[in-house]
Formats: sequence, structure tokens, C-alpha cells
Amino acid sequence: MNYMLNNENAIYYECGYSCDNVLYLSLGSEAYFITDSRYTIEAREKVHNAEVVIDRDLYGRAVKILKESKVKKMIFDPKEWSVAAFQHLTDNTKITFSPEPDFSHKKRIIKSDEELKILAKAAKLGAKAFSRLAKEFQQNGIGENEFALTHKAKSVLGDYGKYDLSFDPIVALNANAAKPHALPTKKRMKAGDLLLVDAGLKYKRYCSDRTRTVQVGERFTFGTKSTFAKKKIQKAYDVVLKAHDNAIAKARSGMKAREVDALTRDLINKAGFGEYFVHSTGHGVGLDIHEMPYIASKSDTIIEDGMVYTIEPGIYIPGEFGIRIEDMVAMIDGKAVVL
Amino acid sequence: MNYMLNNENAIYYECGYSCDNVLYLSLGSEAYFITDSRYTIEAREKVHNAEVVIDRDLYGRAVKILKESKVKKMIFDPKEWSVAAFQHLTDNTKITFSPEPDFSHKKRIIKSDEELKILAKAAKLGAKAFSRLAKEFQQNGIGENEFALTHKAKSVLGDYGKYDLSFDPIVALNANAAKPHALPTKKRMKAGDLLLVDAGLKYKRYCSDRTRTVQVGERFTFGTKSTFAKKKIQKAYDVVLKAHDNAIAKARSGMKAREVDALTRDLINKAGFGEYFVHSTGHGVGLDIHEMPYIASKSDTIIEDGMVYTIEPGIYIPGEFGIRIEDMVAMIDGKAVVL
Repeated sequence: MNYMLNNENAIYYECGYSCDNVLYLSLGSEAYFITDSRYTIEAREKVHNAEVVIDRDLYGRAVKILKESKVKKMIFDPKEWSVAAFQHLTDNTKITFSPEPDFSHKKRIIKSDEELKILAKAAKLGAKAFSRLAKEFQQNGIGENEFALTHKAKSVLGDYGKYDLSFDPIVALNANAAKPHALPTKKRMKAGDLLLVDAGLKYKRYCSDRTRTVQVGERFTFGTKSTFAKKKIQKAYDVVLKAHDNAIAKARSGMKAREVDALTRDLINKAGFGEYFVHSTGHGVGLDIHEMPYIASKSDTIIEDGMVYTIEPGIYIPGEFGIRIEDMVAMIDGKAVVL
Repeated sequence: MNYMLNNENAIYYECGYSCDNVLYLSLGSEAYFITDSRYTIEAREKVHNAEVVIDRDLYGRAVKILKESKVKKMIFDPKEWSVAAFQHLTDNTKITFSPEPDFSHKKRIIKSDEELKILAKAAKLGAKAFSRLAKEFQQNGIGENEFALTHKAKSVLGDYGKYDLSFDPIVALNANAAKPHALPTKKRMKAGDLLLVDAGLKYKRYCSDRTRTVQVGERFTFGTKSTFAKKKIQKAYDVVLKAHDNAIAKARSGMKAREVDALTRDLINKAGFGEYFVHSTGHGVGLDIHEMPYIASKSDTIIEDGMVYTIEPGIYIPGEFGIRIEDMVAMIDGKAVVL
């Protein structure tokens, strides 16, 4: 099987190193990591299972290597190649390129033991960061707006420059939390507010992902046992937590992804909040923050040991509040283990 | 002229609003901003000169609109469309799509008076942030490593969550500054070190960009008049500053971009550092941090009033040190004005 990659994480997965200007060709038993001279030293040191080729003209060099090889067919991911980059190769070779959407994500759906260890560590570091963030918000968060709170979340999650983040954290108060992908506003946090934080950090390039929803008060942690003064919020929260716990307790290897999705959705539907759970139950996590498997109501993907994904049911009442509780799980010995 | 866009900044330029899931079709006198329901309210409020269309299936809806129109030819930028997205449209319509690389960047090369004001404000905010950063580094930077210093740069440039950044700041010490795109290391800053900072912030989505190189001491600002204890560094610094000042003083509308490039390069060559100036003199700045015009040794682009670009000569001695001084200029009444 021959394939070509131009996605940084897809390439890292193949050879243990990557950078922001690289093409990767896998031609039977040979592989080529083509980059420019800025990365010569690091690439030669860290790339394994591939020959490092240094060239200013990545695509020109790729064409040359492809012509010299006797390759007739190449797989590529049409979602990851631009029309321009792809045409450079099709115009200059006679190879048949076959599109394989999510090619690398499919390869990466089952995590190795080494990857599971790294993801567990990422999740643990993420959880610790949430604990520190709760303290930071209690001490210095009251009266700050969502922009400043988001900045604090970035600082604490990244441990002030030590870790990269999985994505820009979501820090949303009250009605703003009703938007699953809320952007910060100038609303300021005060005691009694509902606070939703969705954030993660990267450890050895692998992502963590976690969401907690709490009521701001003198003492709060980002645990899952939150209490709210408003009955309507508490009711919705309890439903989300029950759905979250139910999916973690009952997810099994061999199930279809939609059956795992149903473990949260059915409970939320029964409680009458179905129309307010507007997204899927979860998504795979790895080098990318969104990977396979997708835990969605229409997915027939079979869940298997070694998969890592989020369980993150939510209830979003427009104009009022939003609740989401998210943890990462790994399928181990047939069951979901929280990372 | 009919065209289609899927780049966030390209679309913002057309209609004053954008988001992370949008397609834009311009069909003669009609235009369509197609996005999903998460953005309904904001899009309806802020998009001008285009009809807001809400649909989960952006591409399907685009196909429908294209079929209903009598459009026969569409321009697109092959660098910005993925093979998959593009094929969705080619497979389902009979339109002839003509590739026009950098289509939006070409439209945006001359800035309007309104854009010039915004860019000037962005640059001014960036300059002020550098002043604050100098103080922060003097007070709390000594003994911190490049990761922590980079984090401080992000915090100060973004004013603790108020502004987005143009890009991840570069904060590099001594030999690490010799890499034009240095990544942070665990090296800790001490008095006497050479410190290079390349950073910018966004104001109303427009980028600022600025680089300063200084010697760390009890008192330093991020001005351009830096002094260094080591003679070799001081000599190189003086050459870079002279090149920087020369280009700003002598750049004229009507020149070719390569002539502006030569205003820095010739001086650096004459001083014997030519082989250590490994990049172009500058790049356009606007909604994207890298736009047209590119001030490069092979560019025949004619410089015109209303263009905004950086002047950023550098000298990089591998294993020893790197120097770069960068400012943004706007071409006004034929001359380069520092923003």
C-alpha cells in the first residue's frame, strides 16, 4: 500500500516527528520525510522508519521521488490535500491517486499501549489543571469577564507556558454556556453564576479534553457533584450527570457507537430535555482533538478495546443556561475506563 | 465575475463577518453567506451585502444555489479549497471552475483608508504591548525559560485575554534566536543575554507584527537603539538597523518589491553578512499575518500607495546569535510611513 500525507499529526504518527512544512511518502517498504533546511537537524535526529529528504521545493522533490519509484497507485486523504497541492502531483506524474477520506484517522482509531499511557497522563495533567483552575477562579476570578477568565484558563492549563493546549478553552457563564461552542463575552463572573469550562492540554502531542459545569461560590471544585441554587438548573444537571455516568458504566466493546450514544441520549430524552441535547455524545481523542470514533446517533462504528473517546452529554436551554460534563474514556478489557 | 470562498478572513473581507463554518458565493450582483444554525443570530446581525443562508449541509446548499442560478463559470482559490470540498461542487454541478491562486489576497493588496486606520491602531497597540513586555521581562523574566517567557509575551500582548494574537510569539535567547522561526527551549534568561521577540496582536481582526532584539539588562526597552557588550553582535546589529532604516527611508511607490528588498539586502551584503540574511525583507500584513505584497528578491510586484508590509531584515549566525528588527509600514503619498 502506497500513500502520501501532508498533515502534521498524521506524519508524526508514522515516524515520531513532524513540523509545519513536510510531505510524507510511503512507498511499499520505503518512506520519505520531505522538509526544508530549517528542520534538517531535528528531522535527522528524530524521524524513524523514513528517509529524511531536505529540499526547498517539497512538491517538486516528491514528484521526482515518485517518478523514480515504480509506483502506480497512491492513496491520499482528499480532506487534507488542497486542490493546488494535489494538482501539482497529478499534473506531473502518471500515478492513479485514490481518495481515502480520514485515511490517517482510520489507522489511528485503536491506540497502542504506549499511546494509552500518554493519553492517560495527558488526562491526569488536565484534571490537575482543572483543580488549580478552580482555586485560581475562586481567588482571582470574581469580577473578571469571560475574556480574562479564558486567559486564566489558558495560563493554568498550559502551566504558564509548559504545555500546549488541545484547543482554545471555552469559559462561559450562564446563558453564554447555552452555546456549545461559546465565544467569550464581556460578561463578568459573580457568585451564584453558572460556570462552564471546556479545556484540555497536550502531553507529548496527545490531547486531553474535559468539561465541568459548576455554580460559582466561595468554595467550588471542578468535580462532577455540583449543586445549583436554581431548581431548573439542578434538575438538568442531575440528568446530564446521570447520562454521563450511565454511558461510562455501560459502554462495552462490541457495541455500535450509536448504542453508546443512546446510553446518554435515551436518559436525556426520557427526562424531557431531548431537544436541548444538540450534539453527539462524544468523539475520539488522540493526536487530534477530534478523531474517530464519533459517538453519534447514526454511527455504526463498532467500539473496540484500545479506542479512546469522550463522553460529554449536555443540555442547552437557549437564553438561560448550558450544562455539559465531559470525561475521556479508554476501552480496556471490554469496558470504559475513565482516564 | 462569480467566485466562491471558504477562507474565514477572505469572507470577512467581503461582508464584515465570518465564522469557522461558512461558504461564500458571489454570483454577479447576488451573494450568499452559508453557515449553520450556531451562527444565525450573529450572521443576520453583522453580514452586509450578502444573503445569510442557514443550513447544516453547507456544500449541499451551495450546490442547490448554484444550480438555481444560471452561473456557468466560477473562480476559486485552489490553495484554499480541499480536494474533497471542491469535488463536492464539481461532481454535482456543470459549472466550469477556474483556479485563481491567492484570489482574495490579490483583492486585499491595497488597503482602504478604513483598513489603514485599523492597521495603524493594531500596530500602535502592538508597540505599547512591547513596552509593557520590556517591563515585565525586567521585573519577572530573569531566570525564566523560553516557554515561560513566551507565555508572558502572550499574556502581555493579548492584554490578559483582551486581544487575540497575530501568531504564537517568538521569544528566543542567544543561539536560539539564530533560527528565524525559533521554537522555545528550556534555556533560562539571564542578564547579558541577547533576546529576540517577534510578536503581534489583532485589532478588529487585523494583525500587527513587530520584532525587536535587545541585550537583557537592568534597564532595556524594545526600542531600536540597542547596545550589546559583544562587538560581533553590535556590528551585526548596527548593520541590520541601518538596513531597516534605509528601506523605510527609501521605499517608494512605483518601485518593484525586489527593489525594496534590495534596500536592506545590498547593505547587509556589503557588510559581509549576506549569507546570514536567509529570508525576504518583508511581507504584507492585513487580516492575515502573511499577505501580499511579498518583499522578496525575485518579486516584480509594483509597490503602490495603500500597501502595508513589514520591513524586517535579519542576520542569523548559526550556533551564536540572531538579530531581526521589524516594523510595519504603509505606503502613503509615495513613501513608507511606519505604523
